[in-house]
Amino acid sequence: MNMKEIVAQEIAKRVKTGDVIGVGTGTTVDAALAAIGERVKAEGLRVTVVPTSYQSAWRCQELGFTVMYPGYRGFLSWGFDGADQVTKARWAIKGKGGAMLQEKILAKRCKHFVVIADESKLVEALGVGCLIPVEVVPSALILAEEELRKAGATEVSIRSGTGKHGPVITEAGNLILDASFSKITEALEGEIKRITGVVESGLFIGYISEVLVAGASGIRTL
Amino acid sequence: MNMKEIVAQEIAKRVKTGDVIGVGTGTTVDAALAAIGERVKAEGLRVTVVPTSYQSAWRCQELGFTVMYPGYRGFLSWGFDGADQVTKARWAIKGKGGAMLQEKILAKRCKHFVVIADESKLVEALGVGCLIPVEVVPSALILAEEELRKAGATEVSIRSGTGKHGPVITEAGNLILDASFSKITEALEGEIKRITGVVESGLFIGYISEVLVAGASGIRTL
Repeated sequence: MNMKEIVAQEIAKRVKTGDVIGVGTGTTVDAALAAIGERVKAEGLRVTVVPTSYQSAWRCQELGFTVMYPGYRGFLSWGFDGADQVTKARWAIKGKGGAMLQEKILAKRCKHFVVIADESKLVEALGVGCLIPVEVVPSALILAEEELRKAGATEVSIRSGTGKHGPVITEAGNLILDASFSKITEALEGEIKRITGVVESGLFIGYISEVLVAGASGIRTL
Repeated sequence: MNMKEIVAQEIAKRVKTGDVIGVGTGTTVDAALAAIGERVKAEGLRVTVVPTSYQSAWRCQELGFTVMYPGYRGFLSWGFDGADQVTKARWAIKGKGGAMLQEKILAKRCKHFVVIADESKLVEALGVGCLIPVEVVPSALILAEEELRKAGATEVSIRSGTGKHGPVITEAGNLILDASFSKITEALEGEIKRITGVVESGLFIGYISEVLVAGASGIRTL
């Protein structure tokens, strides 16, 4: 088993029939979903999920889970997601997959929110070699660029990709600015969020209940 | 000059000061915008554009053009755009860049709509080796997939790309299905459009006033 599969198995073990689980987005999440899917097939577990992206929703549907609509009016007992970077203090940067808005909402809705990661994601300090994604309403682009620089961003760029010409569009119809900061403080998340036109950022401070880190010597819990 | 630059120069020649021009999306369009930009710089032309994407809007702004909002309430005397494939009868497939919704609206708003292309885009029959992109409201995905197959699509896939996890999102917040058809008839555009939840397709039949094709021996007009 590789590291992703080790945490995937740990997550799958925790699922009880009848659970309503919050599900993040990304390749680590996909591995966990596959492991839960094995239990659904083998044991006839009934699993209901609240997804954070089309990709996760479609994957859960394929695996035979019941996928609730995102506006489902309920808190969730637990949920899991990956991270781009995470620290021992359980601060994280997320959003490389562009789903940080729904992921942050999910993190708040889950009573117990678990981040799963392999050792490569565990860092001493956030932000070294990792950009903070900021979801921005398109007409606020210039505001957000300027205010992010005032908040200490040394570089700010509009995210683009393949599959369409020009900027990547989020599943809420917004744009993503990737901002690099030389120092990330506890106050920074609020400073970014306060910028007019900013919807959410990929900086997660105070949302994560538990981090499961898979390394060569097994799983550690932070 | 390469072929893109040859048509770019031809488009730039046609611009008169005070024009309100419809501007498509893509690399051929980018080359034409650069050529118009040269004239703006050299001759002080005043150029106003109605764009079809963030990318084109930002590029036009950099070049010193006045960029109107897409909801600008006016028809346009002329506009130009590229194409993925175009025929001598001026049928075209567009939307590789994901902007076909705004591009089709633009084509209808322009009294004279010019497609610019190099020889490689000129085909005997549309659809060979080229998918038709169909913009779909997310909840209608299964409807659109099924109905496209009924309309003759042999393969239908959800477009994905890099920059975000999962499907590409259009600038209107929708998804793109890329559909391959073995035969493209005049009726097909209407059949696709009639599917509930389909916003627009990249099949353009009857929108194009003129095609400028750049080849080794210069420019031809279709």
